[in-house]
Amino acid sequence: MSGLQRDLERLLGGEALRTGDAAETYLHDATEMQGLRGWADAVVVPQSTADVARLVAWCYKHGISIVPRGGGTGFAGGAVPFGGVLCSLEGIDHVRSLEPENWSAEVEAGVVTARVHNLARSNGLFFAPDPGASSQSQIGGNVACNAGGPHSFKYGSTGVFVTGIEAVIADGDVVRFGGHCRKDVATYDLRSVLVGSEGTLGILTRIWLRLLPAPEVTLPVAAAYSAVADGVEALRRVYGHGLLPATLEYFDEGALAAAGETFPRQLPANTRFLILSESDGGRDEAEALRKPLEEALAEKALSVAWLEESGDLRAIQRWRSGVSYAVSAQRGGKVSEDIAVPFANIEAAIEGAREIGERIGLPSCSWGHAGDGIVHATFLIDARSSDDLSKANLGIAELFELSRRLGGTVTGEHGLGWVKRGQLEHQVGTAELKLLRGIKDIFDPAHLFNPGKKGMGGGEREVGLVSAF
Amino acid sequence: MSGLQRDLERLLGGEALRTGDAAETYLHDATEMQGLRGWADAVVVPQSTADVARLVAWCYKHGISIVPRGGGTGFAGGAVPFGGVLCSLEGIDHVRSLEPENWSAEVEAGVVTARVHNLARSNGLFFAPDPGASSQSQIGGNVACNAGGPHSFKYGSTGVFVTGIEAVIADGDVVRFGGHCRKDVATYDLRSVLVGSEGTLGILTRIWLRLLPAPEVTLPVAAAYSAVADGVEALRRVYGHGLLPATLEYFDEGALAAAGETFPRQLPANTRFLILSESDGGRDEAEALRKPLEEALAEKALSVAWLEESGDLRAIQRWRSGVSYAVSAQRGGKVSEDIAVPFANIEAAIEGAREIGERIGLPSCSWGHAGDGIVHATFLIDARSSDDLSKANLGIAELFELSRRLGGTVTGEHGLGWVKRGQLEHQVGTAELKLLRGIKDIFDPAHLFNPGKKGMGGGEREVGLVSAF
Repeated sequence: MSGLQRDLERLLGGEALRTGDAAETYLHDATEMQGLRGWADAVVVPQSTADVARLVAWCYKHGISIVPRGGGTGFAGGAVPFGGVLCSLEGIDHVRSLEPENWSAEVEAGVVTARVHNLARSNGLFFAPDPGASSQSQIGGNVACNAGGPHSFKYGSTGVFVTGIEAVIADGDVVRFGGHCRKDVATYDLRSVLVGSEGTLGILTRIWLRLLPAPEVTLPVAAAYSAVADGVEALRRVYGHGLLPATLEYFDEGALAAAGETFPRQLPANTRFLILSESDGGRDEAEALRKPLEEALAEKALSVAWLEESGDLRAIQRWRSGVSYAVSAQRGGKVSEDIAVPFANIEAAIEGAREIGERIGLPSCSWGHAGDGIVHATFLIDARSSDDLSKANLGIAELFELSRRLGGTVTGEHGLGWVKRGQLEHQVGTAELKLLRGIKDIFDPAHLFNPGKKGMGGGEREVGLVSAF
Repeated sequence: MSGLQRDLERLLGGEALRTGDAAETYLHDATEMQGLRGWADAVVVPQSTADVARLVAWCYKHGISIVPRGGGTGFAGGAVPFGGVLCSLEGIDHVRSLEPENWSAEVEAGVVTARVHNLARSNGLFFAPDPGASSQSQIGGNVACNAGGPHSFKYGSTGVFVTGIEAVIADGDVVRFGGHCRKDVATYDLRSVLVGSEGTLGILTRIWLRLLPAPEVTLPVAAAYSAVADGVEALRRVYGHGLLPATLEYFDEGALAAAGETFPRQLPANTRFLILSESDGGRDEAEALRKPLEEALAEKALSVAWLEESGDLRAIQRWRSGVSYAVSAQRGGKVSEDIAVPFANIEAAIEGAREIGERIGLPSCSWGHAGDGIVHATFLIDARSSDDLSKANLGIAELFELSRRLGGTVTGEHGLGWVKRGQLEHQVGTAELKLLRGIKDIFDPAHLFNPGKKGMGGGEREVGLVSAF
């Protein structure tokens, strides 16, 4: 044990410390697929907000950085540490209250997202955000990333459902903004600043959530097309006809080449573009959307198939969660980013990403939340090939440029994390950057929270393969 | 003309200056009903963001405060100046784009809210926020206050629809966060910080809005009860049965005594509590909610009446907008605040406000957005009676205490403005206050934007009748 570890053992108790193999699992997130692993001087699992406050006070006193970590399902390396103390929130996982009569919940940050979904459902309620990997991800991490997901199209991202946050900030202060109340305009909205702050302003320890009445039914539909242009036309008709299904997802030819075989239903032979959507709500409401949605999707479609609302729905949602992994499996690795553009520019983003792949000479594909303009643009790589990685880095740089040219952003839902750390300066101007750095300074004057993330600098030591972009 | 006025005339052109009677109209907002009027050293109406940037740079150079003003429909004195330059946004009122194919709009801050509603509607779209006085209020003011309104229950407040903001901050910098893109998690969410900042961080000049497909129909329903408890039980059944109508409003006995006579339909003789609600959406969807909503409302109701979706709906919405004025007319004045509590505590808030009125010896009433837990608690006064004003001040202090005791806030939608300027310290702790003041400092280091508002101090000279609370 190092001196630091012994100090933290004294501070938090021996059971809070993870060492050796038990610590290894905390050093990566989903970016492991592109070869990113970090290191930590200590890994701790505090058991309460008071523990976190003591930890932060101690780290602030000793100038040691702190990286908070939820379920480790992020796609941007936001929870990957490069030295300092890794603080896992898994031990702070009580459901403080679930109030069906108030459509609200109060949960600690380490509560697993699926538990929030299930608790809501078993009380006739609905927690809409579904960023994926819900049985591993934690609500605190979801909030810290303002996680999106398919249902964000109709219902909004995680932040929309957050009515209160408790966080530990420098130098050990516990702050709270909001609570069970649905509306509060007394203060500057620092709740929204903590949402999506990626652990760089403090450690989220408790979350108050607004819930919705559960939709009575969810009717999934799959529409197959032989060309991107035909599929995009259908997406445009959904907008043009003023339809608001719960989800509006797309998968291009490359994504289907990787994952199409395992799609729960047989797709037409020629399918090069797939749209998945869901009509939900009360039975009458969901049924009423069927016909107009089918009409919007049908023109030039190879097929439009309504699937079963129980078994098929679960199978499709499982399949949807697996697409990213199926794509990775194609060549052993992938470099993938979540650019977002105004919906009107979705075709330019999909086609632009494909053209970049051709130019750099890497197989590429994309899929995403079409309704929200989010394109998960992906280059398939052999993760052991430095040539592939160089090409992918070039491609990603072009992709980010494309997103900005189309009036969009380099990240629609994953966050800047570590892998997009050089991008903030390209995306916003000098005056905006000054304000953003001012925010960092107010919450974290010594810049000890999650260095190198969210474009805030720090942690600049080289960390291997992904360092070029 | 003063030296300051001549300087501003040189800076912005003579047509930008308002003097004499033409300036008077800019010195108050809806708090005029409780006797609040301010003063300004100059009133200007800039014509562009560039004008505002020059104005702010000049004011910053000379240490002169700037109070931005939209339509002047606020209920918290947020746009009332106490010296300095009053900057009206009415001249910056172009609709930059309305993109039906993207469900989005880009409008300048001075665009009147009703124009946004109408533009959306005429393109098959829907801008849900309806804080009232929409033919006078401006979108920039709505955003600066994160204005609520009846439809906030189903659709959310103004901020939920804001995807981008352009603002002029110190010392004349034009900043922009977001745009037409629906999702963007690249930066700390400073868009949400500007939303609801009440002009204390800078001057909002342009807004990007997300729109929704327009509901096909809106079916209004009115349910009358002879007692608060019966009505609240009905509200609770709406929550308990998981129903989500577009609005869920209530009016108590006192509010009906003032405004009940002009209600578009005859109310039962005994009515002491009225619930107004709307079922909206596609025809099938709205019709499907009828039966369960009626069932939830019917128990112990004196009557439940579905009204016509066209003429009646407009009449009811007009009536709803007039309630505040009808209440004022009772005794010539009122002191009214918009406390909010978790929905589960709505009865305690309504009854608590009534008891306070009894204790202080003033007639009182309340109405509000029950679904969001917002109670517009009101004491009726003779605005010329200092005795009434003293009593009202006592009552308001108790009311704020009540809102905090019930886990709520002193303001659910109007903002702190000027009239709640002593409340922030009671509502949040020391660590939170330090962060909030830090936000003010990074946007407005010399504290020249809208002094005395949003709990940020400044402008402490006595301003007459309302200064006690």
